[in-house]
Amino acid sequence: MSTETDPTHHSLVAGEPLPGTGGTTRATDPATNTPSGPEFTLLGDDQVATATQAASDAFPTYRAITPAARAEFLATTAERIDDAGDDIVVTAMRETGLPEARLRGELARTVNQLRLFARVARTGDHHGVRIEPALPQRTPLPRPDLRQRQVPLGPVAVFGASNFPLAFSVAGGDTASALAAGCPVVVKAHNAHPATSLLVAHAVSTAVAEHDLPAGVFSLIYGRGADVGQTLVADPRVAAVGFTGSRGGGTALMATAAARPVPIPVYAEMSSVNPVFVLPSAVADDRAGLAQGFVISLNGSAGQLCTAPGLLFVPEGADGDDLVDQVATALADTDGLTMLTPGIRSARTVGERRLAAVDGVTEIGRGRDGATENAPAPAVYSTDADTFTTTAELSEEVFGAVCLVVRYRSLGELASVAATIEGQLTATLWFDTDVEADRDDVRRLLDALELRAGRILVNGWPTGVDVGDAIVHGGPFPATSDGRSTSVGTLAIERFLRPVVYQNLPAPLRPAPVQEDNPWNLTRRVDGTHVVAERSENT
Amino acid sequence: MSTETDPTHHSLVAGEPLPGTGGTTRATDPATNTPSGPEFTLLGDDQVATATQAASDAFPTYRAITPAARAEFLATTAERIDDAGDDIVVTAMRETGLPEARLRGELARTVNQLRLFARVARTGDHHGVRIEPALPQRTPLPRPDLRQRQVPLGPVAVFGASNFPLAFSVAGGDTASALAAGCPVVVKAHNAHPATSLLVAHAVSTAVAEHDLPAGVFSLIYGRGADVGQTLVADPRVAAVGFTGSRGGGTALMATAAARPVPIPVYAEMSSVNPVFVLPSAVADDRAGLAQGFVISLNGSAGQLCTAPGLLFVPEGADGDDLVDQVATALADTDGLTMLTPGIRSARTVGERRLAAVDGVTEIGRGRDGATENAPAPAVYSTDADTFTTTAELSEEVFGAVCLVVRYRSLGELASVAATIEGQLTATLWFDTDVEADRDDVRRLLDALELRAGRILVNGWPTGVDVGDAIVHGGPFPATSDGRSTSVGTLAIERFLRPVVYQNLPAPLRPAPVQEDNPWNLTRRVDGTHVVAERSENT
Repeated sequence: MSTETDPTHHSLVAGEPLPGTGGTTRATDPATNTPSGPEFTLLGDDQVATATQAASDAFPTYRAITPAARAEFLATTAERIDDAGDDIVVTAMRETGLPEARLRGELARTVNQLRLFARVARTGDHHGVRIEPALPQRTPLPRPDLRQRQVPLGPVAVFGASNFPLAFSVAGGDTASALAAGCPVVVKAHNAHPATSLLVAHAVSTAVAEHDLPAGVFSLIYGRGADVGQTLVADPRVAAVGFTGSRGGGTALMATAAARPVPIPVYAEMSSVNPVFVLPSAVADDRAGLAQGFVISLNGSAGQLCTAPGLLFVPEGADGDDLVDQVATALADTDGLTMLTPGIRSARTVGERRLAAVDGVTEIGRGRDGATENAPAPAVYSTDADTFTTTAELSEEVFGAVCLVVRYRSLGELASVAATIEGQLTATLWFDTDVEADRDDVRRLLDALELRAGRILVNGWPTGVDVGDAIVHGGPFPATSDGRSTSVGTLAIERFLRPVVYQNLPAPLRPAPVQEDNPWNLTRRVDGTHVVAERSENT
Repeated sequence: MSTETDPTHHSLVAGEPLPGTGGTTRATDPATNTPSGPEFTLLGDDQVATATQAASDAFPTYRAITPAARAEFLATTAERIDDAGDDIVVTAMRETGLPEARLRGELARTVNQLRLFARVARTGDHHGVRIEPALPQRTPLPRPDLRQRQVPLGPVAVFGASNFPLAFSVAGGDTASALAAGCPVVVKAHNAHPATSLLVAHAVSTAVAEHDLPAGVFSLIYGRGADVGQTLVADPRVAAVGFTGSRGGGTALMATAAARPVPIPVYAEMSSVNPVFVLPSAVADDRAGLAQGFVISLNGSAGQLCTAPGLLFVPEGADGDDLVDQVATALADTDGLTMLTPGIRSARTVGERRLAAVDGVTEIGRGRDGATENAPAPAVYSTDADTFTTTAELSEEVFGAVCLVVRYRSLGELASVAATIEGQLTATLWFDTDVEADRDDVRRLLDALELRAGRILVNGWPTGVDVGDAIVHGGPFPATSDGRSTSVGTLAIERFLRPVVYQNLPAPLRPAPVQEDNPWNLTRRVDGTHVVAERSENT
């Protein structure tokens, strides 16, 4: 498919183009501030039901296919995206301003993520089977035969993110985990990268067709976010929502979901300043290296990563002063990168101005403006811990390469501050791991931070998320709407499931996961004890 | 403690009586409509924070104790409740009108439930550990060391139920699972049984003291539900809510929790009519036995069980007619039982009148009024499937021994109805398991019902919940606020936990669950594979 030759593109609903009645949109190349690519029609509110009905119709069939069939579909989806990879990367570069290397990496992550969930679907731990066979002789009452499994919730609405046009978008983590769970997906495309979204959507729909699945398993819709998004979340056929975006957008969807006649879960990843706590032992040593690593993490993808370090706690005193100087030095030699959209760039300017205007906040360093239209210089400000704790807005995320350094007087003061921060995706500690004397202080910080963040790092930078079995990309509100969950990694599949138990269901009627002979070779709990499935290496 | 000799009792906050400033309350003996037991002071709104602050203060210590310590505390709690068992049962009989045998059974269930969660705390599967050791040689990027575990959310507010003064109340399932998870608990007592609540609260607080735990691990508060309950849920120190009660009460708490600056999860079990689907093959045979079983299930505890059968689908035709006659016959010989409070009895009367007034609904049978003041006769009404599907209020729960029989013409019609019912705690199928021809019809019903109920039973009655590892007592809204969960059984502990991952945390700082040598002997996932802890039989 070429997005250049066709004058107008449309939502892809159950594999078919659906011309929208809600006007049109067109991407802007943020490097040049010029319109980019073809026009896309936007759905009217009354057209959303076409997609949700198709998803609802597809659900009974899709949720019942075997683990192998679901895994193969996910693997094919990965392959079709990989096939279109060059086209996707070129298109995404134009629509997002992100550099090729970043997008190649994100493409690989997206494809690997789908393959990871193919493995999850195949091994099937998410079925969560718990069996308690009947105990007819138990007193005072016999125990019935009880067989529990997890079932998918139903159609899931996914909102593509602006800042990850691939890995948190059309076929990103939310879509992969929902599909792996057995839920059809309706993706609301982010209007900043419509052509990228359509290329990926075609890959998914191709895989749906190749595996003879009902076409409604997947749809991509375009619309004005505030209208069509709300309509989608309010639709009675939608059973859960995955969202990556702003705090305002996320909380609006939470309110809509809570106000439905039947409320549904919303998994919104919204805002995080990802505090980095530099302890005195860490500034005793390689301050230049620390400053360098920080600036790279801050400026990566123009600071538009959910886990970008927006707060840096540095001790007062000579070593801390030197670290700040080193940051300023490293920054001075750093070019601003193109931001995703003119609107995101404007918001960053507004946020930075607001920060700079706070009494007690001073600029300590700034890079160079980048060569393109929307590439503001990365900037770092500083304040003291008192000002930080008494000024609520200093805890708010400025989306972009803007960081606030907070100077603290003592580890006691640092612990007090740590105990008051809002929910975060990440919190990072830098300290000399060989200094035993620090450990009690670090433990105190850990105690506070593990209640406030989803991921705690030591001597590293929070940008970069290792997608696997142990990762948590989540955290208490407002980092996400629901800290009991993760949007990245295999645990994400649990978002889209709920338990059901069968009591005395005769053997011929039992669903495969709870059958006595375990035909799907699942790891199960029987009478409270794990019975681990034996598997060959290549599953 | 005797509740008779002391003129006034108070909330028990962190082990100490807290006289309330919000007026007083006194129980009513529903058998006689006379005041019963002493007065209890009610907390004013501004006093709630005393309990939540104590819980918040206790949290850091309580969440960090070993699995063994937490298990021993829960076991002692069970023992102290057992010690006070006779006093508790006598008091509960007077306050609830429930018969001794039922309350003895409920006491045993409550104690066993605490022991079950003691075992859960000790074995520690809920730590949910997932470890991915560092892979420094991995390309293109090395993998960091990642260690995930589940941490408790924080102080939990529990609302005692009217209908289970023990098992869903002060030390009921919500309290047991929250304490097992590591969360302090503040219980809002149900005002219908204040003295029963205080006896149990003293048992819990005694166990807290015996184990030298911070007193704030547990508090019991009295207050006007609509005020103090809302204050409790809005309190910023409260991290989650467990509730068993009415749909109105539950949805009000959901709204309050969603409107907080930091929204929190609410686990409200609210309303369920527990449909029973009798298939033609089931009425071919022992109709008298079926009718008998149904009436016992309907009238048990005066119909005041969350899982009481409120809807009975019966085929049209001679066999169905005969089943209905048999129900009427069994009912005629059945006495009404004392309901929990005069208010609950009044609400039942209103609900029954509303049901009886619907065009197309007729009474088909009625028992005898019971001997006490609040013991209305059990009653069964009937309608056809068309009337049922077109009259929304016929799907609403009437709390008490009132059931609506719905006559259906065909299995096709039954499947259509099943596909439209609201979320339920249970759904039951009766059919002849030897009739192979029925199986496709049953499968179709199962497909619809497993998306709408937490527990699906075959050839049994939904009242009676087997507390263990596989049970689900939950279901989609409006049965509960959150169908992803259960309020009964070991899975309930997951309500009060969230994941956190440590990235490159040095060995000396790792919390016990994620340490390399696994000092707590937990079953863990390492590199995606279950590593099952070996245990002796008596853990």
